[in-house]
Amino acid sequence: MVKVNENYGKLPGSYLFSEVARRIAAYTAAHPEANIIKLSIGDVTRPLAPAVIEAMHQAVEEMGTFEGFHGYGPEQGYPFLREAIAQFDYRERGVDIKPEEIFVSDGAKSDCGNIGDIFGVDNKVAVCDPVYPVYVDTNAMAGRAGEYQEETGRWSNLIYMPCVEENGFAPVPPKERADIIYLCFPNNPTGSMATREQLQQWVDYANANGSVILYDSAYEAFITGPDIPHSIFEIEGARTCAIEFRSFSKTAGFTGNRCAYTVVPMELERSGVKLNAMWNRRQTTKFNGVPYVVQRGAAAIYTPQGRQQIMESISYYQRNAQVIREGLTQAGLECFGGVNAPYIWLKTPDRMGSWDFFDLVLDRANVAITPGVGFGPSGEGYVRLTAFGDAQATCQAVERIRKML
Amino acid sequence: MVKVNENYGKLPGSYLFSEVARRIAAYTAAHPEANIIKLSIGDVTRPLAPAVIEAMHQAVEEMGTFEGFHGYGPEQGYPFLREAIAQFDYRERGVDIKPEEIFVSDGAKSDCGNIGDIFGVDNKVAVCDPVYPVYVDTNAMAGRAGEYQEETGRWSNLIYMPCVEENGFAPVPPKERADIIYLCFPNNPTGSMATREQLQQWVDYANANGSVILYDSAYEAFITGPDIPHSIFEIEGARTCAIEFRSFSKTAGFTGNRCAYTVVPMELERSGVKLNAMWNRRQTTKFNGVPYVVQRGAAAIYTPQGRQQIMESISYYQRNAQVIREGLTQAGLECFGGVNAPYIWLKTPDRMGSWDFFDLVLDRANVAITPGVGFGPSGEGYVRLTAFGDAQATCQAVERIRKML
Repeated sequence: MVKVNENYGKLPGSYLFSEVARRIAAYTAAHPEANIIKLSIGDVTRPLAPAVIEAMHQAVEEMGTFEGFHGYGPEQGYPFLREAIAQFDYRERGVDIKPEEIFVSDGAKSDCGNIGDIFGVDNKVAVCDPVYPVYVDTNAMAGRAGEYQEETGRWSNLIYMPCVEENGFAPVPPKERADIIYLCFPNNPTGSMATREQLQQWVDYANANGSVILYDSAYEAFITGPDIPHSIFEIEGARTCAIEFRSFSKTAGFTGNRCAYTVVPMELERSGVKLNAMWNRRQTTKFNGVPYVVQRGAAAIYTPQGRQQIMESISYYQRNAQVIREGLTQAGLECFGGVNAPYIWLKTPDRMGSWDFFDLVLDRANVAITPGVGFGPSGEGYVRLTAFGDAQATCQAVERIRKML
Repeated sequence: MVKVNENYGKLPGSYLFSEVARRIAAYTAAHPEANIIKLSIGDVTRPLAPAVIEAMHQAVEEMGTFEGFHGYGPEQGYPFLREAIAQFDYRERGVDIKPEEIFVSDGAKSDCGNIGDIFGVDNKVAVCDPVYPVYVDTNAMAGRAGEYQEETGRWSNLIYMPCVEENGFAPVPPKERADIIYLCFPNNPTGSMATREQLQQWVDYANANGSVILYDSAYEAFITGPDIPHSIFEIEGARTCAIEFRSFSKTAGFTGNRCAYTVVPMELERSGVKLNAMWNRRQTTKFNGVPYVVQRGAAAIYTPQGRQQIMESISYYQRNAQVIREGLTQAGLECFGGVNAPYIWLKTPDRMGSWDFFDLVLDRANVAITPGVGFGPSGEGYVRLTAFGDAQATCQAVERIRKML
């Protein structure tokens, strides 16, 4: 008899965004006239940049000819894309990353989940609280999380690092030994950023303890502050302790185009094994590369036109973030994030519970947001708003929330 | 200190196709004038069908507009594609598969590897010998294969089912209890096919033992015989014991376009858990769907024009298979496969070793083939030739091999 992976049975039932969608659907059914503005899911809304569209058309054209057809490509990505990433996302910022340290993939969500394949089950994992649920769920599936405790909303074997107002939503290294540490900056969901000094503390901790930092910088393009690190590899010593995840999803609106990459430095070794070689083996065995057409589209964002065009979209979303942040702050609410990040982390008024405030805003302002507690117990009393919507709708949503208060 | 997944260290070093590539490169370096024809790797060579190209252009165009832009899609694939698959690949052939049983993905290689996530480590896995290396390597990585034994070329904890001339290269259920059984028909590498009766034996075995059959039918489009099952779900009882992998790679030349799908029937349960729900959870947590543009391209093969166009390419490759099979048979060599499959499984003359024959054919005919032993010990004394090349080059390769004998 086949034995199923019993860890799946431990996962709590409903996924945050399914529950959000369910409540919106129920509300809409009861109030068909309501015009709901969604500032909930972090999906982009602006079309792909003209340079990307042009490159994709050209690649589609090639795929229809004998001479231009591309079959299986390198699992790690085409050299033209790996080299552009190394050049423009790293070397131009003074960080030396080689193309062979870059693994192009179909998404940071896939990579954040699949990276667990190269680690043993018997590792102690540390996550932020609140946190992007994929880090937690994939470790639970792999058997690293222990048991889910309904009463606390936490897993018995994970180390939770509360990210709260008191620490500026940036965790400090735990006293307990952590082997694998997930960090995400600019942070989802709190929109917080870590300083160079804070990241240095983490890198020093990881090197001292033989830990590995899994650094998710999917929102890197939203950083505006001149002193804020864009990459963990700007920090001295990171090449011996960190793996970085990046994505074209938020940088270039690729959520429906699926392209991301993971950087595993050559110096990163544990038990005498290069993690770059392990990830390479994982990817060549269980993955077969990203569509040629998509990789051509991704490479186009590094052309002068492409860069300018994606910066326009990012600025557009940044203005939305500003509108939300300033509008709600002026209305007397306490807002965090939204400066170097597309997320605004809003404290509910009067210590209201996240879901209660969600229901209230849905009902009174017809605006959908995301309850903070869905990202972990320390998110209780907060909600997340995203800046990825239409500018006019975003202004309107802020106006409606102001009016309801 | 992080503990790496120690199973990776057990994997034998060089991957079959890397070694083939290395030998070709070494030969080419020593003989720069040689015009090598490759009948080795199973990659397609003909361009995407015009209907696919048109659909992809249109989808790219949409992605460049506000109205037509698609962000995150359903992780399981868009309804338009899942419905077309259910209709044309199944219902039209009299097999009732529902759209919600179909999970669109970026490749059968990914799915064949990732499916292991939903099973426990403590399962006994049975594979054919010779076999597509991904089944073995992914189970070795997950800790199900035991130890690799250099002297036999086998893993200590896998059940190997020899596929040899005596059993028509189709295995029978093993005496030992197998929990997870990988079957691939039309077979890679032997090009063999299983009859309805043979598959019924497997389904009965799996239902009686609570096993799960992982049925890879990536080469289904090459079946011509009217009585040969295209899907495991044509077999009575398969809905309670089988998962099927399909791919657009060989059906529609999508090797560089990355689209495939996996079918998990609703009735398939083990330990009271629906595997469809488990796979859905796995995919929604660790995967984020296939690019919209690619899914539109895939859906186009189900239009009348699309179907006709992809059939033309398949016929082209089928003629290559016939040319190889007949040409080498006439030359006195013993050939298997190549009728309902794009692979020809050639017995080496005079019981020559696979790699010796590979070197000989490379040197004397300047043709690259794949040594059978690379797929497992029972492949020794065989080589695999693929029908995915250019027709003229394929004829020339056959001619050259005939002359060298």
